Amino acid sequence: MAGKIENITIIGSGNVAWHLSRALYNEGFQIVEFVGRDTEKTSAYAARVFAMPVLGLENMSKESDLYIIAISDDALPEIVAKMPEVEGIVVHTSGSAPLNILSRFNHYGVFYPLQTFSEGRTVEFEEIPVLIEANTPAAEDAIMDVARELTLKTYRISTEEREKLHVAAVFVCNFVNHMFTIGHQICASHQLPFDILHPLMLETVRKATSASPASVQTGPAIRNDQKTIAKHLSQLEDDQKEIYQLLTRHIQQTHR
Amino acid sequence: MAGKIENITIIGSGNVAWHLSRALYNEGFQIVEFVGRDTEKTSAYAARVFAMPVLGLENMSKESDLYIIAISDDALPEIVAKMPEVEGIVVHTSGSAPLNILSRFNHYGVFYPLQTFSEGRTVEFEEIPVLIEANTPAAEDAIMDVARELTLKTYRISTEEREKLHVAAVFVCNFVNHMFTIGHQICASHQLPFDILHPLMLETVRKATSASPASVQTGPAIRNDQKTIAKHLSQLEDDQKEIYQLLTRHIQQTHR
Repeated sequence: MAGKIENITIIGSGNVAWHLSRALYNEGFQIVEFVGRDTEKTSAYAARVFAMPVLGLENMSKESDLYIIAISDDALPEIVAKMPEVEGIVVHTSGSAPLNILSRFNHYGVFYPLQTFSEGRTVEFEEIPVLIEANTPAAEDAIMDVARELTLKTYRISTEEREKLHVAAVFVCNFVNHMFTIGHQICASHQLPFDILHPLMLETVRKATSASPASVQTGPAIRNDQKTIAKHLSQLEDDQKEIYQLLTRHIQQTHR
Repeated sequence: MAGKIENITIIGSGNVAWHLSRALYNEGFQIVEFVGRDTEKTSAYAARVFAMPVLGLENMSKESDLYIIAISDDALPEIVAKMPEVEGIVVHTSGSAPLNILSRFNHYGVFYPLQTFSEGRTVEFEEIPVLIEANTPAAEDAIMDVARELTLKTYRISTEEREKLHVAAVFVCNFVNHMFTIGHQICASHQLPFDILHPLMLETVRKATSASPASVQTGPAIRNDQKTIAKHLSQLEDDQKEIYQLLTRHIQQTHR
């Protein structure tokens, strides 16, 4: 490992691999190669950032300054075990895998962009928090320099702290989206346009990001409006009802 | 009831009464009076739109073109019963009260702004959907004209449809905000700044309002990533765990 990072190898062909490589390329880093199993995707992603597509870990370059492993947590142990020895810094991009899963390397770290990425959707990387951890101060400084090229929001976060943020992210992203899905289902089953609810959804998140969410809670649960709660329950399907009851109870407990 | 609405009486001194009166005033309607029980609030709200504060329903004007009852659903039957006879159109602003709760009047309707209002927070009324219903086409046209002065998003919606939207709103607003609250609690209990999650929260709602929410679901539940789910559960308190398990199961059922 030597000083400033210039050449980067990307391992993976999912959404994080794609969005991250594009952002790095735009900031002037050289994406040397894309290493993947999916020939088509690997070639397509590589072509778009003028990198080489490489199939098979045994064929990857040993000369890159940084190796970014952007694959699912489940596949991480196997890929790490199969990688060749390298002198560059090896990082993973996972919210929940520990730092030391990479301990077979000399220089390693975590480079976790805390955002939800989807295919075909452009996100402004400069708004995305990047959470950094590494096995040595030198490695941490080197990957922090990379992160700072992409975003103003960089954080030094331990494995334990990252795990907590990852759980919190499930609530504020995955579960929130599922609440939107149920709202959408209710509208669809009564031929009502879901976009009537869009302004409410947008204002809800604006409020919760400009004050403490608990302080802006509204609705029948916090008002303990039993009449409305009963009316709502009578209109829901069984599984929606179960969610409505549990969350109503928990809102009331939280605000007691 | 005669033609175009110019003079308006507001009954109530909550957030909807305040936001709505301000928006109407800004569009050139004359807010004649604010009728409330809370002397201080009624006077304060009235003063800000150059209206008269009126304490007691028996003292309200009988000459207004429109009476907007913006109070809690629970208080609605009592207020309706106590109001004097009036010739103007009487509307309520409730998402779940039926139209015919106002049937003792000659001209009546519903004027429901589908948004979450908080004290001290300005919302752009032109972005807010207003759901309209009335007992006659003439009354409906008259209140629709008022709604169109405030917003581009007006809808003619029946009581039954409005009830469904109100239930859906609980999911996409109140329950979503509670998910944010739990995320905030997890951060707070580990001294992590909640604003690390803000970009994720904003992107989550942007995605769900630009595609069908089900189509952009991400996270361990939909991937059936049992390892991450188990790890998350081990980090949660009992009541958070119950919510995590139920929503994980429901996400998996929904996407099977």
